[in-house]
Amino acid sequence: MSSEFGEKLKISIFGESHGEAIGCVVDGFPAGVTLNEEEIYLDMSRRAPGKDKFATPRLEKDIPHILSGVLNGVTTGAPIAMTIENTNKRSSDYSNVLSVPRPSHSDYPAYVKYNGFNDIRGGGHFSGRLTAPLVFAGALAKQLLKEKGIFIGAHIARVGSIEDEPFDKNNISLSLLQELTKESFSVIDKSAEEKMRSEIENARLDSDSIGGIIECAVVGVDAGVGGNMFSTVESKLSSVLFGVPAVKGVEFGDGFDLAKMRGSQANDGYCVENGKVSLKSNHNGGVLGGITTGAPIVFRTVIKPTPSISQAQDSVNLQTMENETLVINGRHDPCIVPRAVPVIEAAAAVGLLDIML
Amino acid sequence: MSSEFGEKLKISIFGESHGEAIGCVVDGFPAGVTLNEEEIYLDMSRRAPGKDKFATPRLEKDIPHILSGVLNGVTTGAPIAMTIENTNKRSSDYSNVLSVPRPSHSDYPAYVKYNGFNDIRGGGHFSGRLTAPLVFAGALAKQLLKEKGIFIGAHIARVGSIEDEPFDKNNISLSLLQELTKESFSVIDKSAEEKMRSEIENARLDSDSIGGIIECAVVGVDAGVGGNMFSTVESKLSSVLFGVPAVKGVEFGDGFDLAKMRGSQANDGYCVENGKVSLKSNHNGGVLGGITTGAPIVFRTVIKPTPSISQAQDSVNLQTMENETLVINGRHDPCIVPRAVPVIEAAAAVGLLDIML
Amino acid sequence: MSSEFGEKLKISIFGESHGEAIGCVVDGFPAGVTLNEEEIYLDMSRRAPGKDKFATPRLEKDIPHILSGVLNGVTTGAPIAMTIENTNKRSSDYSNVLSVPRPSHSDYPAYVKYNGFNDIRGGGHFSGRLTAPLVFAGALAKQLLKEKGIFIGAHIARVGSIEDEPFDKNNISLSLLQELTKESFSVIDKSAEEKMRSEIENARLDSDSIGGIIECAVVGVDAGVGGNMFSTVESKLSSVLFGVPAVKGVEFGDGFDLAKMRGSQANDGYCVENGKVSLKSNHNGGVLGGITTGAPIVFRTVIKPTPSISQAQDSVNLQTMENETLVINGRHDPCIVPRAVPVIEAAAAVGLLDIML
Amino acid sequence: MSSEFGEKLKISIFGESHGEAIGCVVDGFPAGVTLNEEEIYLDMSRRAPGKDKFATPRLEKDIPHILSGVLNGVTTGAPIAMTIENTNKRSSDYSNVLSVPRPSHSDYPAYVKYNGFNDIRGGGHFSGRLTAPLVFAGALAKQLLKEKGIFIGAHIARVGSIEDEPFDKNNISLSLLQELTKESFSVIDKSAEEKMRSEIENARLDSDSIGGIIECAVVGVDAGVGGNMFSTVESKLSSVLFGVPAVKGVEFGDGFDLAKMRGSQANDGYCVENGKVSLKSNHNGGVLGGITTGAPIVFRTVIKPTPSISQAQDSVNLQTMENETLVINGRHDPCIVPRAVPVIEAAAAVGLLDIML
Repeated sequence: MSSEFGEKLKISIFGESHGEAIGCVVDGFPAGVTLNEEEIYLDMSRRAPGKDKFATPRLEKDIPHILSGVLNGVTTGAPIAMTIENTNKRSSDYSNVLSVPRPSHSDYPAYVKYNGFNDIRGGGHFSGRLTAPLVFAGALAKQLLKEKGIFIGAHIARVGSIEDEPFDKNNISLSLLQELTKESFSVIDKSAEEKMRSEIENARLDSDSIGGIIECAVVGVDAGVGGNMFSTVESKLSSVLFGVPAVKGVEFGDGFDLAKMRGSQANDGYCVENGKVSLKSNHNGGVLGGITTGAPIVFRTVIKPTPSISQAQDSVNLQTMENETLVINGRHDPCIVPRAVPVIEAAAAVGLLDIML
Repeated sequence: MSSEFGEKLKISIFGESHGEAIGCVVDGFPAGVTLNEEEIYLDMSRRAPGKDKFATPRLEKDIPHILSGVLNGVTTGAPIAMTIENTNKRSSDYSNVLSVPRPSHSDYPAYVKYNGFNDIRGGGHFSGRLTAPLVFAGALAKQLLKEKGIFIGAHIARVGSIEDEPFDKNNISLSLLQELTKESFSVIDKSAEEKMRSEIENARLDSDSIGGIIECAVVGVDAGVGGNMFSTVESKLSSVLFGVPAVKGVEFGDGFDLAKMRGSQANDGYCVENGKVSLKSNHNGGVLGGITTGAPIVFRTVIKPTPSISQAQDSVNLQTMENETLVINGRHDPCIVPRAVPVIEAAAAVGLLDIML
Repeated sequence: MSSEFGEKLKISIFGESHGEAIGCVVDGFPAGVTLNEEEIYLDMSRRAPGKDKFATPRLEKDIPHILSGVLNGVTTGAPIAMTIENTNKRSSDYSNVLSVPRPSHSDYPAYVKYNGFNDIRGGGHFSGRLTAPLVFAGALAKQLLKEKGIFIGAHIARVGSIEDEPFDKNNISLSLLQELTKESFSVIDKSAEEKMRSEIENARLDSDSIGGIIECAVVGVDAGVGGNMFSTVESKLSSVLFGVPAVKGVEFGDGFDLAKMRGSQANDGYCVENGKVSLKSNHNGGVLGGITTGAPIVFRTVIKPTPSISQAQDSVNLQTMENETLVINGRHDPCIVPRAVPVIEAAAAVGLLDIML
Repeated sequence: MSSEFGEKLKISIFGESHGEAIGCVVDGFPAGVTLNEEEIYLDMSRRAPGKDKFATPRLEKDIPHILSGVLNGVTTGAPIAMTIENTNKRSSDYSNVLSVPRPSHSDYPAYVKYNGFNDIRGGGHFSGRLTAPLVFAGALAKQLLKEKGIFIGAHIARVGSIEDEPFDKNNISLSLLQELTKESFSVIDKSAEEKMRSEIENARLDSDSIGGIIECAVVGVDAGVGGNMFSTVESKLSSVLFGVPAVKGVEFGDGFDLAKMRGSQANDGYCVENGKVSLKSNHNGGVLGGITTGAPIVFRTVIKPTPSISQAQDSVNLQTMENETLVINGRHDPCIVPRAVPVIEAAAAVGLLDIML
């Protein structure tokens, strides 16, 4: 029942969508790392809404305020606490959700679990807004990983029926990842963006929403990182990734396609290249037996269509225990996939750093 | 770097494929539970090889030997230790893997991680044989869950190109699950078995292997179980599931299909039924915001084709650092999916019980 | 390397003595508890300096500011984040400690551990000021424990050569504990206070400091709480208590006196009282085999004399690596024992609640 | 509620006094360590009873049987499982304790906690016999620490009224510790042994038992090891030490004597020696702010008189709920302090290694 993650890098996230502030404590981050504020802000702005008409117009000024653990821009080894004030809340938009849970939101199960005491304004602690502190923690983790030669980048692999070009799993260039992580709408095939935006706009015009897939890659991790049984790279990363609201699936390498493949197709052979062991393919997404192989770590996560849609929906009134039709007012992203890209990168970064520290 | 799982129900698994014994310690299991040995043996025999020509002929007598924590058949509250002797090992079959790692096995990354000190006979601690203690722990967990009215069952959703009928996610009967968990080849549509067996036999005749998908359901869990952020039901279950060798993907509810869906299709509406809140559909697989909804928990895991195939494969000699063609002798399952069914159930059981204790 | 505590009640403490703010996140605190702000403030003011001439004149306004997890005064089940602004820092007082570590402070080992990157102003994250968030967390825990009929109180058992009357370990009244927890100078024998104050004043006049012992009792815990081996009540409480700066020893029941005792003197016999099992004595401090017996939990902690004294002391200059005489300026408590009383109570409260949740 | 310890070095202990076997799993121990079996056996035989007339005549053959994690005498990095068979149990000696709990044993609180399902024969999982696996794990840890130049040794500081010469805390030679760890009755002042043995014999003749104190030292740990707040060296070590049955107090450095001292007496000044920072005294026992100072880590633990005495004692019959006089038959150590010496060393070793890994 915890918003804490990690064994060596411990991240504790707090706050509610319409509370006073959200934030996190990052405990276990090494001393002596000079933080690049610009890169932190870039990642946070990639996640922030309000960048264009496709995102929610609610203007959140996601400015992280560091309270501890950093002196003169350098980490001290003490826990790094960060808060983001909630300045632009309009609670009245959500005034009806107390009685009538929004379908496919956390409203109903959280109501049961917390006996109705949970803050339900805007989803409370379950709001997607709580991914902002995760992106902050991820940005810290990325900076330390970069010092170790490790780089993480992701792109929108799919929105509805539109697919981007996938990563060439065994051959992912640093420059491609660098490029992707500068965008607010990250795709490999630039022509996919317009089609995806159109898919999203169509959903919006239908008062609907649309899901998608994010593919993420990590390059620069040596072979031998990870652990067996319950401490596999896949276990660790998936446990963070499934902490991101709306994620309903995680697959590594060829993932679910492996069900249709034979061993002779799926096996990654070895060869010697420049005196080092290399893999001839990367169907396993850079992980074997839970341990990295030296090939890029590649995984995909599915993001369900955001449940907040303006169409009338079937629900119940928890007070009267009668069926009720719900119409959700307020302004909502028809597609959160583009904004989720830096969140997935952040989850990968904190998961990986926790393994490597 | 750990073969331990859990916060409240702590499971520590040990052993190597060709070592003296494998086993586990289950710490935190409540006192006063009368164990049903027959059910434990049934689950272990569902996982055990040698049941028919499709499984490896190596005969493992997976007889669990309980050393502690159980008195007169009833749990005492003390840690339950269990060992299984390794009686039928033929190490010579694997004599070449020291120098030449088997593609897509843990051999190479484990060699790097452990500086060559890891036991490589039969995969050592990374062997699929280590799922036997997990099935034992899962069988204990299932018995306690059953006392709470919770039942877990899985089936082979796919082998190669052949699909079984999927669960009707919002309407899964206890009797169906009971039936599935009595089988060594669990399918809903009985006619699928023959086609799947034929798909497997074809792979075997080609000296190849084949992958598949297992779909698992948990019925009887009330709404309100689980936690937010990093303690979601999905996080917990996936962290165990990805500890099962060969699992490369986990999806809940409609999973990756949600990428193509709109909110209006994916949202699970509510209605009042017999004075209780019910869901009108179950696209989210029984979990919202990381917490159970009261609908069945439904998830799917992909099992990659077993990497042990008899065809010649590209590898390298780690001693000479030259390319080498590898031919793996020995006898191997062409498809481990049927035997993995009770393993997936066990992973779900220990993950869920750790949440609920 | 962590400022986090707990398995079920997870407390993450952050901040530096002269940083922007200190605070904590309390994760896992149940929903639906109405907080009594007055009691929280009382505990925090008992710990706060500046109450009288014996404490440091530095005026810290330890006003906790709750950012999340509480709505309309009632806990929501989400993490409770709290900050205290540092308003009254006078960094110049400590300007020399960068080069010359203060004897018996964390300065030198922290310098080594963090390669000199740690914030050394006022001890940074190692400052006794960081016990304020612990007292806050403890006050929350106390309120929940009180709902379960459990009450915690402590007193100054010794300052230098002056002893207070000890608890009658098997017979501690709720009213005594209630009285003690209302005081800023908690003693059972009121006549001890003046002697202790005089002992402290003598130390102050000598530019010196003085140590002491705090005895703490917990009443209302039923038999059967705790765990064996590494989850004993003693293990859990001591791991929190030794997290309080200046604590150098913890003993339960008769503690170190047991070394001189025989079994026939130390054993606590049983008798039946009002149809219930009672202990005839409480030499074991309410814990046997790591589990509570139903008798009060009683333990003592020693608080070393505060290392900040105004006398000249031998140290070294870490920059020049030459011996150097250090004179610490600034204002310091000659005795922190009275202020440490609520800190010890808080440590007991969070440790115990983590066991009981 | 767990018999597991550790974050990086995870130790899971299992078994009951009169069950089939006791043992442990040590997970996270690095690969490539050549085990010295002789040293393991030496430590286990120092703990084993039956060495002389002062110890219980029950002959336990504490021969550890390693099941996994070690190949050709070298650790593999996989979990190390070890069992010790229980060969010499005489359950009938304890046949009455089911109804009538032995005073100051775990019997009664364990009965409450486990609703009477716990194995009560010989104390079950709470038996001091369960320290044998801890000594095994400690012996492994000692061997790895020795490779890092760290050595741990302890001596009997007190039995009843007889004291041994204490460690000279700031000047403890490796050779002294080496000598102490070869003995089955470890004292610094050899003349103390006879007096202590006589003190123990007197207790035995009185059908009584006697307590004592063990002082333990760790040399060779560099400055900078440990952590702040809840991960102090003291927190970690005490949490293991209080897992040892009969330990009721732990103090570091001057411990409880610090209560009577002034800062000017208790502070450890610094000086430069051979170009390195040294401490001029070691009142803090090698730890400041939770982090090692480079001086020896020195701590003391009190061992209560073993509660098993042959005198008649007051107890209750839990079945009839009537007062009852209990006479414990069977053979018991009048003093377990000598045998506890290697247990305390082991606890220190596993605690320290968990910090350092």
